Amino acid sequence: MTTLMRREIGEQPAALRATLDSLLPRIAEVAALARETRQLLFIARGTSDNAAVYGRYLTEARTGRLATLAAPSIATTYKSKVDLEGVLAVALSQSGRTEEIVETQAWARACGAKTVAITNGGPSSPLAQGADLALCTEAGEEKAVPATKTYTTQLAALAVLALGLGADVNPSDLDRVPDAVEKLIEDPGDLEAVVEGLAGKPGVVVSGRGLAFSTALETALKLKEACYLHAMGLSYADLLHGPIAVVDEDTPAILIAAGEGPTLPGTIALAERVTGAGAAAYGVGGGTGLATAATAALNGPDLPEWVSPLGLIVPGQLLTEALARRLGIDPDAPRGLNKVTQTD
Amino acid sequence: MTTLMRREIGEQPAALRATLDSLLPRIAEVAALARETRQLLFIARGTSDNAAVYGRYLTEARTGRLATLAAPSIATTYKSKVDLEGVLAVALSQSGRTEEIVETQAWARACGAKTVAITNGGPSSPLAQGADLALCTEAGEEKAVPATKTYTTQLAALAVLALGLGADVNPSDLDRVPDAVEKLIEDPGDLEAVVEGLAGKPGVVVSGRGLAFSTALETALKLKEACYLHAMGLSYADLLHGPIAVVDEDTPAILIAAGEGPTLPGTIALAERVTGAGAAAYGVGGGTGLATAATAALNGPDLPEWVSPLGLIVPGQLLTEALARRLGIDPDAPRGLNKVTQTD
Repeated sequence: MTTLMRREIGEQPAALRATLDSLLPRIAEVAALARETRQLLFIARGTSDNAAVYGRYLTEARTGRLATLAAPSIATTYKSKVDLEGVLAVALSQSGRTEEIVETQAWARACGAKTVAITNGGPSSPLAQGADLALCTEAGEEKAVPATKTYTTQLAALAVLALGLGADVNPSDLDRVPDAVEKLIEDPGDLEAVVEGLAGKPGVVVSGRGLAFSTALETALKLKEACYLHAMGLSYADLLHGPIAVVDEDTPAILIAAGEGPTLPGTIALAERVTGAGAAAYGVGGGTGLATAATAALNGPDLPEWVSPLGLIVPGQLLTEALARRLGIDPDAPRGLNKVTQTD
Repeated sequence: MTTLMRREIGEQPAALRATLDSLLPRIAEVAALARETRQLLFIARGTSDNAAVYGRYLTEARTGRLATLAAPSIATTYKSKVDLEGVLAVALSQSGRTEEIVETQAWARACGAKTVAITNGGPSSPLAQGADLALCTEAGEEKAVPATKTYTTQLAALAVLALGLGADVNPSDLDRVPDAVEKLIEDPGDLEAVVEGLAGKPGVVVSGRGLAFSTALETALKLKEACYLHAMGLSYADLLHGPIAVVDEDTPAILIAAGEGPTLPGTIALAERVTGAGAAAYGVGGGTGLATAATAALNGPDLPEWVSPLGLIVPGQLLTEALARRLGIDPDAPRGLNKVTQTD
């Protein structure tokens, strides 16, 4: 029997095509808001916050604008007034109904920001209604609790946002994404070996640098949510800066990189360091260089670095779904979680 | 035999007094830079990055200025140019010699930012030399690998920074900090029970909200570094948004809150939820309310919320030192770590 999660992983190529078809014609609207602002503030929680990390790195690396990840409690708990003149606040919520995010968006507007909503909840959702501009993703209804297609379509919306901000990239790279994701689903690489390598381990460290850091955080969150693994998402630098101590024979590492770009050599070196210390390092993406250095590897997408996170998460989704089943957990409904979480 | 780490924990009251005596007279210099800027950018890694999280929440909650945690790889790996006009960049490094931080500080200046250095490396360190204003902490030499007194004195420097930014607080609260820390060291509360509760567990979730989030991240980092625990530092909201699934009989929670302030009720409710689910919740601070809701509790400082993180980390330091010894690890020299880490 196919799980809902596995089915929704498979729906991503179509969801990405529909979302790009809907949002690419709206670049001029983003550009108009961009002209009124000089920097970005991303407002999100959970999976959407991991998408925001992609938006943050993409904005800074490719558009020259400063980008900040908001601390929602400043708005909702401290109720502080912060000067947000010249700020474009981008709020992300799959449902468009998470109260904390809707409230923080309203706070940003009251503090002087222009607002963009990225949501799968449609134009009538509170988040879309509260924004100057709503970029609605076309993922369709998502039934499994672990978010998959709503996450990758958020990334697509963020890539469109970056084009509206004048990113120094080739826009046609986006057209290649749905097919690249399709190919990954058909041939994920050595999935069985990685599932067996993680089964029975209490924890795992998941690391990636720059644009791939968002993928590391989201892969770790999926493994925590649906496999109850002590999965620690860490940037490459923060892993070296301390917690490398936790990597050992009981705690493998998952290391993620695009197939090209400036973060790849460091990720390969980290894989060599982990395996040299006697621990297992599982590669995700990173081409033959990372696959060779790793204990076993999952394929990454054949895409330029700036859009690679749209595909790089897919191996982690497939891994989570397969590992949950291997551990006797129903990935569609892990304990302790609901589809729409209210935090306050 | 007393470990170096335990001795340096005990040196914190004197280190805090010396640092405050040295830095409080320099508020006017901070204020002059503040007038030329409108927002903050914190540049740090590892323990210093956890201090920056305190600086970030304090700045936004009490000064009305937007604060961003920098992604150093934008400077060092992507070498992107970002518009930082009107930004006050605050770089933190205990040694003042971590190349990635020194390089990111230089990048911020080249991008148009004004710069402040917070370091224990003295005025001749590269970080201090590269800044418009250097706030040098007076922790003295730190010999144990896990940072303790260099961390709390960084927090003191950040509190002074906030005063220079015009924070809406009572400056004399800072004078109470060294004695409050002294009292915590003398009477940490139920340390033995928490050490026994964590011994043999593979992982722990550490959570705190708002200003106490910095303490949660730093407590988790200490437990990862020196006890090899799968310690996951999560904000209150992110814990509810997903990974609450990982809390179970094998994975207790450490919940941290100031003795007063708007985050306390939610933290008490979270403790009740965790114990209600059959897992252990260990309280740090939060007064009798959190202690009553928790399985066992460590005392927090008797301080107003805005300065409470300067004391709230002390129970976590004592716990780390005692748990490491209990597990047969030398807390002064955990595996895989050096005192000055270079990430590139």
